[in-house]
Amino acid sequence: MDHKKTLSILRGEMAKKKIDMYLMQMSDDHASEYVGDHFKEIEYLTGFTGENTWVCVTAKKSYLWADGRYFIQAKKEIRGSGTSLFEMGEPGVPTVEEYIKKNLKAGQVLGYSGRLFSYDDHRKYKKIATEIGAKVVFRYNLMDHVWKERPALPKTKLWELAKKYTGETFADKKKRLLEKLKEAGADAHLLTSLYDIAWLLNLRADDIDCVPVFMSFLYITKKKTILFVAPEAIGVHIKKYLDKNGIDIMPYEAIYQEIKSFTPKKVLIDPSVVNASLATSFGKGCELVEKENPTELMRSIKNKTEIENTRIAHIKDGVAVTKFIHYIKNYIGKRPLSELDAADIILDFRKEQKDFLGVSFDTIAGYGGNAAMMHYSATPESYSDLKPEGFLLVDSGGHYLQGTTDITRTIALGPLTKEQRHAYTLVVRANLRLAAAHFPDGARGENLDVLARGIMWDEGLDYRCGTGHGVGHILNVHEGPQAMRWKARDPKKLTAILKPGMITTDEPGIYVEDGYGIRIENELLCVEDEKTEYGQFYRFEVLTFAPFEVEAINVDELTEYERKALNDYHTQVYEKLSPHLSKDEAKWLKEVTKPI
Amino acid sequence: MDHKKTLSILRGEMAKKKIDMYLMQMSDDHASEYVGDHFKEIEYLTGFTGENTWVCVTAKKSYLWADGRYFIQAKKEIRGSGTSLFEMGEPGVPTVEEYIKKNLKAGQVLGYSGRLFSYDDHRKYKKIATEIGAKVVFRYNLMDHVWKERPALPKTKLWELAKKYTGETFADKKKRLLEKLKEAGADAHLLTSLYDIAWLLNLRADDIDCVPVFMSFLYITKKKTILFVAPEAIGVHIKKYLDKNGIDIMPYEAIYQEIKSFTPKKVLIDPSVVNASLATSFGKGCELVEKENPTELMRSIKNKTEIENTRIAHIKDGVAVTKFIHYIKNYIGKRPLSELDAADIILDFRKEQKDFLGVSFDTIAGYGGNAAMMHYSATPESYSDLKPEGFLLVDSGGHYLQGTTDITRTIALGPLTKEQRHAYTLVVRANLRLAAAHFPDGARGENLDVLARGIMWDEGLDYRCGTGHGVGHILNVHEGPQAMRWKARDPKKLTAILKPGMITTDEPGIYVEDGYGIRIENELLCVEDEKTEYGQFYRFEVLTFAPFEVEAINVDELTEYERKALNDYHTQVYEKLSPHLSKDEAKWLKEVTKPI
Repeated sequence: MDHKKTLSILRGEMAKKKIDMYLMQMSDDHASEYVGDHFKEIEYLTGFTGENTWVCVTAKKSYLWADGRYFIQAKKEIRGSGTSLFEMGEPGVPTVEEYIKKNLKAGQVLGYSGRLFSYDDHRKYKKIATEIGAKVVFRYNLMDHVWKERPALPKTKLWELAKKYTGETFADKKKRLLEKLKEAGADAHLLTSLYDIAWLLNLRADDIDCVPVFMSFLYITKKKTILFVAPEAIGVHIKKYLDKNGIDIMPYEAIYQEIKSFTPKKVLIDPSVVNASLATSFGKGCELVEKENPTELMRSIKNKTEIENTRIAHIKDGVAVTKFIHYIKNYIGKRPLSELDAADIILDFRKEQKDFLGVSFDTIAGYGGNAAMMHYSATPESYSDLKPEGFLLVDSGGHYLQGTTDITRTIALGPLTKEQRHAYTLVVRANLRLAAAHFPDGARGENLDVLARGIMWDEGLDYRCGTGHGVGHILNVHEGPQAMRWKARDPKKLTAILKPGMITTDEPGIYVEDGYGIRIENELLCVEDEKTEYGQFYRFEVLTFAPFEVEAINVDELTEYERKALNDYHTQVYEKLSPHLSKDEAKWLKEVTKPI
Repeated sequence: MDHKKTLSILRGEMAKKKIDMYLMQMSDDHASEYVGDHFKEIEYLTGFTGENTWVCVTAKKSYLWADGRYFIQAKKEIRGSGTSLFEMGEPGVPTVEEYIKKNLKAGQVLGYSGRLFSYDDHRKYKKIATEIGAKVVFRYNLMDHVWKERPALPKTKLWELAKKYTGETFADKKKRLLEKLKEAGADAHLLTSLYDIAWLLNLRADDIDCVPVFMSFLYITKKKTILFVAPEAIGVHIKKYLDKNGIDIMPYEAIYQEIKSFTPKKVLIDPSVVNASLATSFGKGCELVEKENPTELMRSIKNKTEIENTRIAHIKDGVAVTKFIHYIKNYIGKRPLSELDAADIILDFRKEQKDFLGVSFDTIAGYGGNAAMMHYSATPESYSDLKPEGFLLVDSGGHYLQGTTDITRTIALGPLTKEQRHAYTLVVRANLRLAAAHFPDGARGENLDVLARGIMWDEGLDYRCGTGHGVGHILNVHEGPQAMRWKARDPKKLTAILKPGMITTDEPGIYVEDGYGIRIENELLCVEDEKTEYGQFYRFEVLTFAPFEVEAINVDELTEYERKALNDYHTQVYEKLSPHLSKDEAKWLKEVTKPI
């Protein structure tokens, strides 16, 4: 792929349309985090394969923004592409907005696709441009002319997730949603988040790798529900299900015309999700009620059925991961093993589990320095062989009919350096300290993150990502509105208050470029604890079960409390998993989880 | 004082002016935290003597909002006043805005004094009223007709704080301020914060008890500086100083007329500070640039001279407090001592110190259950005698020419219960854990607060206030923009990022109604620590030196790290203070600070 040539074609298109600065974002019409191949424009243009990225092209310059998880990877991937890297959040590195402010000139035109940017983004850029005396054009996607062999939109078949897994019917969810609309003073709702549509309808499909959703829009009023979706995606059973639930169908693309003719209503939209093309197309008389999608908070608070099922999914997943660790430890140095093999093997163990649907994200199996790239992905063209020394980091997860998992274990393949052992011990301490948090109603990720991260800060270390994210239920493995994060991406928008039923990961790490990467990730369920005169307290229930690497821990660096917490956890790991293991595996697990 | 009668007179005034709901706030024309007697309207109406309070009166109801520090005290003080208490932040308790939203009806009139509410507040209330279909009237202060013997505005004499204490001249400060105005696109600035005016001009006075400021407004352009202040407050020396610095004088009240005739300018105002009457009175053609006062951040970051002086002030203050503790421990049970005596004695020890100017706030000396009221104040009418058992909490501070202090120690007067010892140990641990924080640039109080508070949360406890506040330099003992606080008062406005030079208190506590109150407060200076690939790290230097109460600590509840931190601190306390103590005192200090 000649990225420089692609860039020059794009610049040609910019010139034709008199666009001086063209902005791209890795997104789709739905503000999805992971997107289908159809939308991988930035990869096509620059070679960069990570998420959460922007590109800004002018006649002379082209820059790509990548976040801390990807600094090392992005540097490698975009080398020679004609595009340069901006490391987001580093001192002196401008944000996308700051860059535009500084480089867009009066009289110039800033262009971007209104389908790929949210209404909020659009207004932000428009304000910047207006203040400069520049213009904004958002009706073209210039990459349509550059990337001619763009893959088609997916149209995989929808399937119903049964009530025994969801715990709540569409009718009941819609009832709750209508109440929220009423509270907000709205009488209609345009929902474009694929996760929220799938959750609300109790339907799933396979339109995005690892994210079982379907390309769609949903328009809801008290009387009507219209689903905009590819007709080919609707089989006989789903047609019946939709009919029974009073859901009308229109083609996916029809939304862009249909929206102009919606009866005048007060329509609730989330301007940080609904794309600019849609948000600016409502027919006359429609009034926008701008709020977060009520379904976002609703789906993040798992109900009893979802929680019980998720616990089951985690046992299955823990069994698969534990069998995998046992396998690797058994064969390392005896059989040739690579990062690719590791990913295959852990997948095989997951496949052995009943109701396994597929991985919840691309497995990260990074050996040695590769693991320092937080979202590293081995490929047949570029991978490392495993040696009987140092660390193998494996971050993986599965969708089961019962729920979704996300787990990281860092495995010692043989001798470790003193530094590696110290680093592993720090990560264990950080993980345990956050998991042990007690906190009253009102606490957010911003408040609690330091319990994990502070262990690193004390040594002048840090990890360039949040400590954790919400986990969807057979949906996106990353979901909001809660997160474990110290630095608000936008200081005016904090993460959501932690509530019982929310599931959040706890994944501190240490990453040393060209050295090693260590991460330990468990999922934490927020549950009610005591109620005192100071309010309702919550704590975390750990959902993830698989052994930590005791041989990598410097026991004398643990506080008494941490040592006890580790032993308690390991006791549970053995109790929950051993009934599902072979005799050999169980014997080994007993050994590696014995109290220290 | 017959508060019910006062309330009924106020309701009569409301009826005359056709005001259905009248809102009051403890404030002055400058959004000051502590106010002169002239402004103590809420105390006059309800009897409540605390700060941070609102009252809302309708024909039938009257409510007072008090924050967690004052729940116990407010309940007592407003009993029988005809006004009922809303405990701010408690479940089910409406905020002022929520209360207005629910109770103001279409067609009604909401009234308040535009001088006592900020422009931000005013717009907020106006929006609420408009949405309801109600009106807002803000040109009257109805209490002017109710409280006829209101004390006059103070006019104490101004004095100059020398450069050897401030480290920066007015000319240099103004230069920095003008740069900030330019950055903000403003060419004029109306400054109404008394703290900022005093800091900028390097002038002080005594217009507010414990806060050495003067009633004034300041209007600044590149060419002009106009100080609106009582002419009687300006002596010969200060007149010369002002002339030399090109500062014109106009009478204090003249601002309300003069503002209408300011030449058209882009005027920077902080809408959360500048009062509504002023903000809505600018002459035609004036454009408002709404920003935080640049001086707020400037004054919170202490310069080298201020820091060196503040260190000196803390040694003096620590000597006074240590002598006091020694005295109390020596004479308890032998001489009659009361809370009032305690406050007198600690004041006497402070007065012995050179350059002592006065207390920085009313001393809180609370014995036993009284200390559970965080801002308790003993009076000749209501105080407790000290007994040789339980805890005496003393929170006090002083202004010295070198700087301002704020320190709390909780002293064991004799036998303690098991619960008291455990509670004291928790407070020590919380205090030490926060003081030991290491954190990178970007961290705020919201991120770090849990290091102290989490120790309480782990036991289902909490304290109903922040963990700490900024400390002014011979100004308000409470200052922003930084604070140690987990819950943002406004989730859209976080506390400021901690920067080297900022001084913040560290004062966790445990308060048991009718039982006891424990608080330990040290001041922490943010200083630079190592710079790593993860950024510039900071840590805290403890500025406050006085012994903790070792006999109240359960040593086996401390972690190894905490025990060491306590011993290190006590070593410093002895080294720094003992040269200034009598032989007896030094001997005693040696004993109570010896390693545990």
